[in-house]
Amino acid sequence: MTMNPLDPSQIQLTEDGRLKHFLTTEGLSKEILTEILDTADSFIGTQARSVKTVPLLRGKTVVNLFFENSTRTRSTFELAAKRLSANILNLDIARSATSKGETLMDTLWNLESMYSDMFVVRHADSGAAHFIAQHVTPNVAVINAGDGRHAHPTQAMLDMLTIRREKGSFENLTVAIVGDILHSRVARSQIYALNTLGAKEVRVIGPNTLLPQEIESLGAKAYNNMNQGLKGVDVIIMLRLQKERMQNALLPSEAEFYRLYGLSTDKLALANPDAIVMHPGPINRGVEIESAVADGPQSVILKQVSNGIPMRMAVMAMAMGGQQSGQNKEEV
Amino acid sequence: MTMNPLDPSQIQLTEDGRLKHFLTTEGLSKEILTEILDTADSFIGTQARSVKTVPLLRGKTVVNLFFENSTRTRSTFELAAKRLSANILNLDIARSATSKGETLMDTLWNLESMYSDMFVVRHADSGAAHFIAQHVTPNVAVINAGDGRHAHPTQAMLDMLTIRREKGSFENLTVAIVGDILHSRVARSQIYALNTLGAKEVRVIGPNTLLPQEIESLGAKAYNNMNQGLKGVDVIIMLRLQKERMQNALLPSEAEFYRLYGLSTDKLALANPDAIVMHPGPINRGVEIESAVADGPQSVILKQVSNGIPMRMAVMAMAMGGQQSGQNKEEV
Amino acid sequence: MTMNPLDPSQIQLTEDGRLKHFLTTEGLSKEILTEILDTADSFIGTQARSVKTVPLLRGKTVVNLFFENSTRTRSTFELAAKRLSANILNLDIARSATSKGETLMDTLWNLESMYSDMFVVRHADSGAAHFIAQHVTPNVAVINAGDGRHAHPTQAMLDMLTIRREKGSFENLTVAIVGDILHSRVARSQIYALNTLGAKEVRVIGPNTLLPQEIESLGAKAYNNMNQGLKGVDVIIMLRLQKERMQNALLPSEAEFYRLYGLSTDKLALANPDAIVMHPGPINRGVEIESAVADGPQSVILKQVSNGIPMRMAVMAMAMGGQQSGQNKEEV
Repeated sequence: MTMNPLDPSQIQLTEDGRLKHFLTTEGLSKEILTEILDTADSFIGTQARSVKTVPLLRGKTVVNLFFENSTRTRSTFELAAKRLSANILNLDIARSATSKGETLMDTLWNLESMYSDMFVVRHADSGAAHFIAQHVTPNVAVINAGDGRHAHPTQAMLDMLTIRREKGSFENLTVAIVGDILHSRVARSQIYALNTLGAKEVRVIGPNTLLPQEIESLGAKAYNNMNQGLKGVDVIIMLRLQKERMQNALLPSEAEFYRLYGLSTDKLALANPDAIVMHPGPINRGVEIESAVADGPQSVILKQVSNGIPMRMAVMAMAMGGQQSGQNKEEV
Repeated sequence: MTMNPLDPSQIQLTEDGRLKHFLTTEGLSKEILTEILDTADSFIGTQARSVKTVPLLRGKTVVNLFFENSTRTRSTFELAAKRLSANILNLDIARSATSKGETLMDTLWNLESMYSDMFVVRHADSGAAHFIAQHVTPNVAVINAGDGRHAHPTQAMLDMLTIRREKGSFENLTVAIVGDILHSRVARSQIYALNTLGAKEVRVIGPNTLLPQEIESLGAKAYNNMNQGLKGVDVIIMLRLQKERMQNALLPSEAEFYRLYGLSTDKLALANPDAIVMHPGPINRGVEIESAVADGPQSVILKQVSNGIPMRMAVMAMAMGGQQSGQNKEEV
Repeated sequence: MTMNPLDPSQIQLTEDGRLKHFLTTEGLSKEILTEILDTADSFIGTQARSVKTVPLLRGKTVVNLFFENSTRTRSTFELAAKRLSANILNLDIARSATSKGETLMDTLWNLESMYSDMFVVRHADSGAAHFIAQHVTPNVAVINAGDGRHAHPTQAMLDMLTIRREKGSFENLTVAIVGDILHSRVARSQIYALNTLGAKEVRVIGPNTLLPQEIESLGAKAYNNMNQGLKGVDVIIMLRLQKERMQNALLPSEAEFYRLYGLSTDKLALANPDAIVMHPGPINRGVEIESAVADGPQSVILKQVSNGIPMRMAVMAMAMGGQQSGQNKEEV
């Protein structure tokens, strides 16, 4: 396999095609995505055991490198790392003076020099995790925990895991993603993964102001009318509404948004009867989703949360394994 | 044993009477409280060893769920969890945006879904830990680390441990609690525990504005005059003065309060000669206690701190054991 | 060996001359400093292994007691403690209310009572770590992570480790320290260590306003002219410029400072051709050092960072070993 440094997906793989960073679902093969899902599935079993830890990352140091605050996402990676027996260092750079007067590269070089094995990166700028993966020393794995509007691949993959566990496979599935697609890194990562994994149809539903212009080229069908968009759908993924967008006049009022794009019991009835309802959390009850739907029998929202830990364990373990296989090759 | 869901003590016990949550000392039997003391006593030995950790909670995840800041209390639970070999996740919800736009129940459901095994809860609202224990999924233990004015049972039990280690038993003991009883969750938890464990007499000493109206029904004798209240006392428990109360005119000036209710060498001389002096910390020297008393031979204040770790280890280990015994029963 | 309580170095040693605290490089013998370097060297090997942890401090509790914020230094001690398998409690007292209304001694007594084994202390006041070591209970080791203008001995020793690994030994070495010597705890600790370890000559370079008056008595030769000071030098240690000093009129403008005391490629050419360039980080590019120099072949700045973890592991392991040898003696 030849490496093309300009292909964003290739930087994620070793020369023999194993995962060594996890930055985006874009460009990854169906085989790799399926391997990630299978690995995560195998970790679900460990989570039901009395002793939830496995020794896969024993003696490794994982750095939670959060340039943007997110207690929730940071916590899931922290738990995943601890259950893999890694040492974890939380660096909340958004709040600390760590990088004061220091360039991003200097911060990275310093952390690398402390013999870190993995960076879990959250950053407000699109492309930050890629930039870091391109410049990091060999043997350090980079996991993207959300970069700007670009990607949030572990969230997308835990959603894929949830869909596969509920529906068995992706063939024949029609999936609708509803809300502010334009600003959503989660939606982008989901669309790539769903298409690669073979979903029959991916739809996005929202007002024109919140749909990216290039959406159809990403492989999704755009709907402004939610009632039409939900017809015949097997999976509904609601996005979290960023309320601050409303002040920018990108959004109608909260009540108007809910009337048009909130998932109510009535609108849910338009989808297939066995459709599942998903949401990355935290949910805004009564803003993008009715409580009766969020807590109802079709909701798998808490299953998504549960699947988040084994999914993060899976990509961390696989990326570390890929790094080490490369390392051994160099030593030979 | 029949479960009465309205009896706040019953929610703490499994069907066969083992501890599964620890929310309050109220309503717990002398047998259970004594078992807690005995278990904590056994952990004291481990703390003097070179290796202080025991593997009892290995592979378990304990979440320090602090809706109210308390670095001190949080640290004692963190140390206790680590010495039990648990993984610990500190969630300082008071300072973070974790629960922004999210209901308490949604926060809880999310944490449960991450396969947490125990919540250590601190909350400014009385009853918060009970509410959480009532709604938490089976197999998750809830430990109350202080809820509003209601209860602070681990503090009360480490005080009981200190008293028993100093005095041998509770029979024949007269115990005085001094200060702002009205706003003290610690005092309430102590009064229940002392009476259940068989103390001869429990007294509360303070101005009428800081004594609860129902105090005698709790099993304590009220004194406004500290000189009278200290006569013949074996144990003096000073409470920390919350200085912000003074602005509410509930309290006289600091100097006046000290004159009336501060524990000076002179006042201490009115108690039994072998009386011990206790304080939950942090102490306000010269406000509620004279330095010479706090640092004097009758003070056991630092022993209380030492006993805090094994006491927290004991209730965490017992509650987890109770949860697991329930779990095994379901599996059978 | 008789103990002189007024000799600041003696408090660091057990009666048979082993390290039990690490507070300052001043007064420590060449043998002890060399033992520290040898121990750190042995830990470097463990950091290249797949499993970086060693069980030396298993079951011990290390408290990162930071009265002054420093995410960077705190992180290196946290990583070092975790790689020694210790439990670590981070107490960021500068930001928390831990010590509110509580004296320093009360805070210490409380932490001691929680069966802590080691305090890593950072404080804005010179002498704080010594004060704590003088008052701490036996069996608790104190490591100075920087106190006021006084000392930062682990930084100085990781610099010594870097010099020894690069240059083989200290004999025949001329070392120049450049910048704000007056306010630098690092420079003080380096000068003591370099002289004890046998460096041929130690120079300090800076404007008169930033050189301590007693500098020659410390064993360093003062230069105001950097061009002259760098001649024949084997090691150049640049200090970080504290920009806030400029407002106090102690410093010329940033541009003027850089012109006079910044390390440029031109100035570097005045030193010996194989001179190494050091900096404690974080670096201010273009303020005290030119990027081409910081990233150039003579720079060992990132090696300093790498050596920081094994150096901290070394002093933590040695001090704990010294404490335990004292403990065993008492038990006999």
